[in-house]
Amino acid sequence: MNEIGLIGLAVMGQNLALNIARKGYSVSVFNRTSEKTQEFMQNKVKDEQIKPYYDIKSFVESLKRPRKIILMVKAGKPVDDVIQEFLPYLDKGDLIIDGGNSYFKDTSRRIKELEEKGILYLGMGVSGGEAGALHGPSLMPGGTQDAYEMVKDVLLKIAAQTEAGPCCTYVGNDSAGHFVKMVHNGIEYAIMQAITEVYDVLRKVLKLSPEEIGEIFEKWNNGELNSFLMEISYKIMKCKDKETGKYLVDLILDEAEQKGTGKWTSQTSLDLGIPTPSLNLAVEARSLSFFKEERVQLAKRVTKIYPEIDIDKEKIIKDLENALLFSVFASFSQGLWVISEASKVFEYNIDLSEVLRIWKGGCIIRAKILDFLRDIIKENKENVNLLNSEKALSFLMDKIDSIKYITNLAKDFYLPMLVLNSSLDYFLSMIEENLPANLIQAQRDFFGAHTYRRIDKEGIFHTEWEAE
Amino acid sequence: MNEIGLIGLAVMGQNLALNIARKGYSVSVFNRTSEKTQEFMQNKVKDEQIKPYYDIKSFVESLKRPRKIILMVKAGKPVDDVIQEFLPYLDKGDLIIDGGNSYFKDTSRRIKELEEKGILYLGMGVSGGEAGALHGPSLMPGGTQDAYEMVKDVLLKIAAQTEAGPCCTYVGNDSAGHFVKMVHNGIEYAIMQAITEVYDVLRKVLKLSPEEIGEIFEKWNNGELNSFLMEISYKIMKCKDKETGKYLVDLILDEAEQKGTGKWTSQTSLDLGIPTPSLNLAVEARSLSFFKEERVQLAKRVTKIYPEIDIDKEKIIKDLENALLFSVFASFSQGLWVISEASKVFEYNIDLSEVLRIWKGGCIIRAKILDFLRDIIKENKENVNLLNSEKALSFLMDKIDSIKYITNLAKDFYLPMLVLNSSLDYFLSMIEENLPANLIQAQRDFFGAHTYRRIDKEGIFHTEWEAE
Repeated sequence: MNEIGLIGLAVMGQNLALNIARKGYSVSVFNRTSEKTQEFMQNKVKDEQIKPYYDIKSFVESLKRPRKIILMVKAGKPVDDVIQEFLPYLDKGDLIIDGGNSYFKDTSRRIKELEEKGILYLGMGVSGGEAGALHGPSLMPGGTQDAYEMVKDVLLKIAAQTEAGPCCTYVGNDSAGHFVKMVHNGIEYAIMQAITEVYDVLRKVLKLSPEEIGEIFEKWNNGELNSFLMEISYKIMKCKDKETGKYLVDLILDEAEQKGTGKWTSQTSLDLGIPTPSLNLAVEARSLSFFKEERVQLAKRVTKIYPEIDIDKEKIIKDLENALLFSVFASFSQGLWVISEASKVFEYNIDLSEVLRIWKGGCIIRAKILDFLRDIIKENKENVNLLNSEKALSFLMDKIDSIKYITNLAKDFYLPMLVLNSSLDYFLSMIEENLPANLIQAQRDFFGAHTYRRIDKEGIFHTEWEAE
Repeated sequence: MNEIGLIGLAVMGQNLALNIARKGYSVSVFNRTSEKTQEFMQNKVKDEQIKPYYDIKSFVESLKRPRKIILMVKAGKPVDDVIQEFLPYLDKGDLIIDGGNSYFKDTSRRIKELEEKGILYLGMGVSGGEAGALHGPSLMPGGTQDAYEMVKDVLLKIAAQTEAGPCCTYVGNDSAGHFVKMVHNGIEYAIMQAITEVYDVLRKVLKLSPEEIGEIFEKWNNGELNSFLMEISYKIMKCKDKETGKYLVDLILDEAEQKGTGKWTSQTSLDLGIPTPSLNLAVEARSLSFFKEERVQLAKRVTKIYPEIDIDKEKIIKDLENALLFSVFASFSQGLWVISEASKVFEYNIDLSEVLRIWKGGCIIRAKILDFLRDIIKENKENVNLLNSEKALSFLMDKIDSIKYITNLAKDFYLPMLVLNSSLDYFLSMIEENLPANLIQAQRDFFGAHTYRRIDKEGIFHTEWEAE
């Protein structure tokens, strides 16, 4: 009898199975198409205690009870399909763990549906890509505490290990795990886009080669910007195409693709009423990039006049580093704010500090700055967007001239800075006592009698504007 | 027997009933609470052929067959509730027209559900606020052509009249009408926000009084910016509070509220993959404004250092006008692109030029610029975002220095410019042959083996980045 079952042998599933087995747990694996299972057993599995099964019944019967089955199948209908197929073979008290990028509302529904049948269910965010799944991902399980306790030991062992402990914690009730993973991806989109905007200045304003940009990124990665995304970016910059000998990054088509989690984060934030302009515009930037043909055509038809300015290379590089730090902070600020609001609205009961801790290893947005963010949250648990702190304010105010300078400079070179601009505007809005929204309220009252509030007295007011 | 029935006597419903009756049609009215009906009959109805009914049966029986009933009730569940209540009294071939701000997916569902019962259904966007409903709104009906033909005459008469004809047309199949109205509101949010951003520069950089700003807005309203929103903005600026004698706009709390249509536009655009950064950030700007208390607290804790620069007032005012024109164009560009894509995806079969025509009168976003936009679309019906045109490109390129200057200047004064910045970045992205999205594709391939395409050869590629 094996300890854990795993269904779905795409790369992430394969690597997670290997990871679990290498931590000393016996694993039963199953895949819809048996060829994939055979291929996996032949090519990847060596001494690991992994046993393949080719029909549902034998797979389920191979597992110790209560059974613990991890699903690593494509989000959406496939998850429901697998659950329906396996349900007749399961017993009360068995546990299903969905390790895919499921939409959190689907996870909430599944938890409820399965609870009625006596089956436990965890929605677990898994970050770290292929390498993370194999060597230690960041795990974000949510559901009932009871369900978590059943697999806690395994999860803590297979997760990435850091000096702050394993990158796994009980995230919270219901779909908390998948919610946090969704926002993790929203933040990831924003940071990736911020890096590319900075890259664009380095290549088009400073006219540096990928190799030179790689040197700068590597240097930054040794400083405050130290992070997985910075690390892979410098490695990417230095990578040459074997065939042509050219830098590979220069040969890649600039049409960014997406799988939906960034979009979900933006849509959900809009529903929750929490501002996430940088997260939204990171998604928009990918959409814009996708219209390559239109862009090429329009680019031919406009004349760009570049300024003749003295370029202070060292200053620009320093400002870029600061601007990127600013934007990374703003992205985390927005993402954590959404999580915090969702925790209240959906009663997830999430500990933001723990979320930051389990993002420290394994996951795509692991970064040195997380320690700084944790320090800020620790001072005040109510600091939902991290801004309400001397540390945070001085960190951002110290860099505001840099991000102002960079976004202005970019405009002179016709470079869009969707995430950098919106990061700055997010912060400027939040430190502004008097936004011009009073005019919006007046307009709404003018044409729709939507009423307004006043600064000098309580109440709800309406004005017959034309009559005054 | 009356010609038209109208259910829901909130202000919009009242005014629409009056409008219809004044055009010579007899109207039966009904409201869930009879007090409202009585109040309406007593206070608003004079010689108009409007008859009140206090139970469903008599209301329905008072109507000529096939019956034509306009719903002016709150979007969401109330619409379904009313339909369920009235359905038992209706006959095959009767027509329901939903004139509220219903979510387009609800409208699609209702059309289908009622079709099965032999009831015709139109989802009709109504724009123009209270005054529009009374004196002539912009009407955006969608559904089957047959259903439209049944009420075409009435709709054409009650709609706003312009030199380009009545502001009503058969928008398209299914939920096309409510979809177009939703995007209309998304554009409305963006233009309103752009105006407030310009207002913020006038009051905080040029330090002008509301009266002076009103003068400038009025002057702009006599030029290219001529529009309903510009007109009400200058009137708002000049309006004084009777009690205090102060300018009323200065007394209004800067927390912008919203009812959801702007949010829906953003969420839907994200689903369709069409970039609408300015429309999105207009929603975000309202969300940000809502956190007044947090903003007041944070504002106290930062020190803003203002630059000592020479202010060229005339130049700034001219640049503001240009920046606003640029942003208005960008907002329409994004909104029309979404409509065009939805028309394909949902098979609405919408004529963009007709949409622009019926927005010319009655509605909130009526503006002189619509004629310019129609000229652009007429040259080339495939120009889904209006950008692919010499006229459009020179219009925007002529103003690019202005919007660059204004957004830079705003930063020096710590003023967020969410819609102005994203309008510029939208355009800069669309005229950029090589966006930095190649780095995003490299990153995605590095950590997730998501593959990428190349500029020098066809195919899908994956690189083992660490190994190179």
